[in-house]
Amino acid sequence: MFGRLNHVGVATPSIARAGEHYAALFGTEAVGTPFDLPEQGVKVCFVDAGNTQVELIEPLDDASPVAGFLQRNPAGGQHHLCFEVADLDAAIADLASRGVRALGPPRIGAHGTRIVFLHPRDMGGVLIELMEAPDGGH
Amino acid sequence: MFGRLNHVGVATPSIARAGEHYAALFGTEAVGTPFDLPEQGVKVCFVDAGNTQVELIEPLDDASPVAGFLQRNPAGGQHHLCFEVADLDAAIADLASRGVRALGPPRIGAHGTRIVFLHPRDMGGVLIELMEAPDGGH
Repeated sequence: MFGRLNHVGVATPSIARAGEHYAALFGTEAVGTPFDLPEQGVKVCFVDAGNTQVELIEPLDDASPVAGFLQRNPAGGQHHLCFEVADLDAAIADLASRGVRALGPPRIGAHGTRIVFLHPRDMGGVLIELMEAPDGGH
Repeated sequence: MFGRLNHVGVATPSIARAGEHYAALFGTEAVGTPFDLPEQGVKVCFVDAGNTQVELIEPLDDASPVAGFLQRNPAGGQHHLCFEVADLDAAIADLASRGVRALGPPRIGAHGTRIVFLHPRDMGGVLIELMEAPDGGH
């Protein structure tokens, strides 16, 4: 059901500073241009890591869910894993049949396709984002 | 300097139970056979996720560093990210020149090649494992 790992979400108090750090690790050209996702309350920046991406995430304000994460982890840290699925609605239905809850209805994610987050209590403590692949996963 | 994401480390109180869960998500054939790494105090199990792997990690005893993680996160959770490097010694030296500390000397990891963990305080709160790629990363 789950496809490739689209990205690893890493929360940071400063995308500007984290971006410099990741540029030193992965090369300047690997670090994309940060952009805001106001409906999710975050600024994000994607870093190419060869076979996948790191998504740096900075809260836009104190109401952002990521702001709570940073209160518990002031230096930042691993926030979520995003796996691609070919059919998001089918995946949500299949997971629901096995007791895995989605955190709200699907919405449009950072890559312009529909995404949903799954309840970490139903996923071994891991916050997982499912993302409809741009090409339908084929 | 950093290459592809070899795996995402996920701590779990039970590889047996987590393995069943991941088999439902990625397919039975994606879940490998668990094995012990006694010198690291853990049992591990790799799950193929297309472009990378998930490494399920269960402590072998209370002295394991992962046991402390599970005390703070009883359900389990994201533990570390493992990136491949072509030359581990060069990577450690380069990181040290920029103030990033290695947690101890290199040792042999789950894939039989040399690995080292980096101090999360120097890496934006993320525990990162560097792994010498089996083929030297070429």
